[in-house]
Amino acid sequence: MDYYYHPDLFTDHIKLSIEEAKHFKVLHHKRDDEVFLTDGKGTLAKATVMGIEKGSVSLFVIERKKEERARDFSLHIAIAPTKNRDRVEWFVEKAVEIGVEQITLIICDRSERPRIDINRLERIAISAMKQSQTAWLPKISCCSFVEFMHHISDDSDKFIAWCGMKSLSKQLFQVPFHSQNITILIGPEGDFSPQEIEFAKTHHFQEVLLGNKRLRTETAGLYACTVITARMEFG
Amino acid sequence: MDYYYHPDLFTDHIKLSIEEAKHFKVLHHKRDDEVFLTDGKGTLAKATVMGIEKGSVSLFVIERKKEERARDFSLHIAIAPTKNRDRVEWFVEKAVEIGVEQITLIICDRSERPRIDINRLERIAISAMKQSQTAWLPKISCCSFVEFMHHISDDSDKFIAWCGMKSLSKQLFQVPFHSQNITILIGPEGDFSPQEIEFAKTHHFQEVLLGNKRLRTETAGLYACTVITARMEFG
Repeated sequence: MDYYYHPDLFTDHIKLSIEEAKHFKVLHHKRDDEVFLTDGKGTLAKATVMGIEKGSVSLFVIERKKEERARDFSLHIAIAPTKNRDRVEWFVEKAVEIGVEQITLIICDRSERPRIDINRLERIAISAMKQSQTAWLPKISCCSFVEFMHHISDDSDKFIAWCGMKSLSKQLFQVPFHSQNITILIGPEGDFSPQEIEFAKTHHFQEVLLGNKRLRTETAGLYACTVITARMEFG
Repeated sequence: MDYYYHPDLFTDHIKLSIEEAKHFKVLHHKRDDEVFLTDGKGTLAKATVMGIEKGSVSLFVIERKKEERARDFSLHIAIAPTKNRDRVEWFVEKAVEIGVEQITLIICDRSERPRIDINRLERIAISAMKQSQTAWLPKISCCSFVEFMHHISDDSDKFIAWCGMKSLSKQLFQVPFHSQNITILIGPEGDFSPQEIEFAKTHHFQEVLLGNKRLRTETAGLYACTVITARMEFG
C-alpha cells in the first residue's frame, strides 16, 4: 500500500508535486490504479490515477477519511542541531516514526555554526509519515534558545536533559507526568551553557536523566521520544 | 577525554591498530599525552603516549581498572538485516549507545540478498562503545533463522515482533519480564514468514507489539532496545 502526500485533499482533482511524482514513477503505477494520500493534517484519501505524464501525475479522489489523532497527548522535542547534518535528519525520521507532535531545532550558545534546512527536514518528516501510513505531520521549526523559552506554554510538563547533570536527578522513565503536554529540551554536543540551564530552570524546566549511559544528542532525542511515548500510551 | 580501543590491555606496551591510529592523528595527540583505552571486555586503562610515527602509535599503560557491567541483565536483539546497509549500521551504533549485550543478524525466509560485513559492524560498535566511554563491547554475529532457534537458551524471556500481528497481543512496555536475560526477534522488511512465526512460537517466543505505529525494522529494533533497557533499569 503506497501513500502519497498532498497538502490539500479537499479538491477532487489533484496533481502531485514533482517530489511526490518521482516516487510515483519508481513504483510503476499506471492509469486507474488506486493509491492512498495523506495531507498531514488528519485526512487520508483514496484516489485513482487519471493521468501520468512526464513528471506530472493527476489523481481523482474517490474517498476521504478523517483520522483522529492516535495520541491523546502532545510531545514537543526541542533539540540542538548536530554538527553532522545526517544525525539531525536521522533523528527527525525516527522521531516521526515513533511519534512526536512538534520538533524545534534550538540554536544554543554552544551550537557550532548550524546550517538548518527546514524544507529538507520537512521532506524527511513527510516521507516518514507516509512510511508510517498516518495522517499527521509534526510541526518542525527552528529558533534560538531564548526565543524558545519565551514561547513555550506554561501548561506543559517541561524537562531538560544535559550531559553534566548529577546522578541525583530523576530518571525520565520515573519522573511523574502531570500534563498531557510534554516538552523536553535536548542539549548540543558541547552541552548547554550554565546560563541556559539556569534560564531553563527559572522557566520551570525540570532536570531529568536519560538512562545511565552517555548518549549523543540525536540518540538522547530518540531515547526521550521512545520513553515518553511508551509511558504516555501504556504506562 | 578520548578513548581508544585495544583488544589486549594486559601488556604494558601497546601499539594501536592502524584504524585506531588514524583517529589518534586526527585528534593531534603528542608524546607524553595521557589517553584512555578500553578493551571491550571490561577493562579501562590510562596510558601515556610513547611514540607517534607514520601510521603507528605506541603507548605505555600506567593504570588499569576493571569495570563491572553497568547492567545486571542481558539483552539479546536478533534482527533481520535491512536491504539498505546504512540502516542496519545505524541500528548497531544506536543500540550500543543505549545498551545491548548481543546482536544477531538473522537471515530470514524473506531477507533480500543480504550482504553482511560483520567486521564493519564490529568497527561501528567499537566506535559507539568508545563514544559511550564504556568497557563492554556487545557480541555481534550472523546466522540463519533456523540456526538461531537451535542455539537460543531456554532460561531467557523470549519475544517476537512482526508487522501483521493482531492488536490483541501484549505491548512490550507492559508484558511481564521473568528473567534477567531477554531476547527479542525483529522481523525483516517483508515480515517473518508464517512458518518462521510458528517455529518461534513452538520455541516459546511470545508475540509483542512495539507501540501503536508501523515502524521500520531498524526503528523497531531501537524501540525495543530503549523500552527493555529503561524497564529493566528503572521499572
